[in-house]
Amino acid sequence: MEYQHENTRAILTRTPATLRALLAGLPDTWTRATEGDDTWSAYDVVGHLLHGEQTDWIPRARIILEQGEGHPFPTFDRTAMFDESAGKSLGNLLDAFAAAREANIATLSGFDLTPEKLALKGTHPSLGTVTLGNLLATWAIHDLNHVGQIVEVMAHQYDAAVGPWKTYLAILNRPVLTE
Amino acid sequence: MEYQHENTRAILTRTPATLRALLAGLPDTWTRATEGDDTWSAYDVVGHLLHGEQTDWIPRARIILEQGEGHPFPTFDRTAMFDESAGKSLGNLLDAFAAAREANIATLSGFDLTPEKLALKGTHPSLGTVTLGNLLATWAIHDLNHVGQIVEVMAHQYDAAVGPWKTYLAILNRPVLTE
Repeated sequence: MEYQHENTRAILTRTPATLRALLAGLPDTWTRATEGDDTWSAYDVVGHLLHGEQTDWIPRARIILEQGEGHPFPTFDRTAMFDESAGKSLGNLLDAFAAAREANIATLSGFDLTPEKLALKGTHPSLGTVTLGNLLATWAIHDLNHVGQIVEVMAHQYDAAVGPWKTYLAILNRPVLTE
Repeated sequence: MEYQHENTRAILTRTPATLRALLAGLPDTWTRATEGDDTWSAYDVVGHLLHGEQTDWIPRARIILEQGEGHPFPTFDRTAMFDESAGKSLGNLLDAFAAAREANIATLSGFDLTPEKLALKGTHPSLGTVTLGNLLATWAIHDLNHVGQIVEVMAHQYDAAVGPWKTYLAILNRPVLTE
């Protein structure tokens, strides 16, 4: 599918409600569980998504729109949530993520994006030249990636409980997403 | 995690709203897209989940509770939705799935499940001996498996649009779930 901004927006607007429907009120035994070192719990993932709303996506879009390729993006701390979520409930994080996303979608609407603006370029510190369209598409797919990660890490908690059915559950028969 | 029926119920009750939040009103370009032969669209997956509610999980639970190991389960047609969803909108399927799931959760409550009942055995046509607890755990993980499948097949539609970021999006760097 070619990049279409309305299609990107359709994903971005839905993620907060999707996470709330999936996770709000769910026992900690599901939401705080990992699959061992280097894997994240559902709680960790929601904190990571919140941090991205606060520090990554819109600031990078502004750099492309206002400064251009000569100003590489600052790096993104993908594990900042291990400190920043401390003391917060999952409900707090879900609410904060929803509020931050709503504000960011409003900011995005204010950019009045055109095909010309979407083709503007920026410089990623590791990946090199990217377009604004690439950035916004990645924002949406990053959401889907992390919804996938959440269901995977939760599914693995019942690895033994499903008994012989494990064979048929593809989600239990490959490594979990780790980022 | 050991099987705990309240934990299973916590997943089962959330799936209809999760799917609605993720998919309702989303453009067909996301919901009808597959990743080629033998992969399912989000629309296909919702039809598959509906078919399971109608024909699989509760009937199999009843066989275990009422008939026991001597009566193997009938086989489940995992591609029945290709005929059964014909002519139905995704909105229709989401509504039908939510209604069927709600009725099935009520039926489950009526079974008044105890540890003894959860340990009762049945016979799967291919897998052999399974317990009622295995069946119910599988029902919940089957939901998570298919939510994962939906976000994967949708993510792949923006495989090109994300540009250089593809490297960082693990969901785009492995085959999609096919069942």
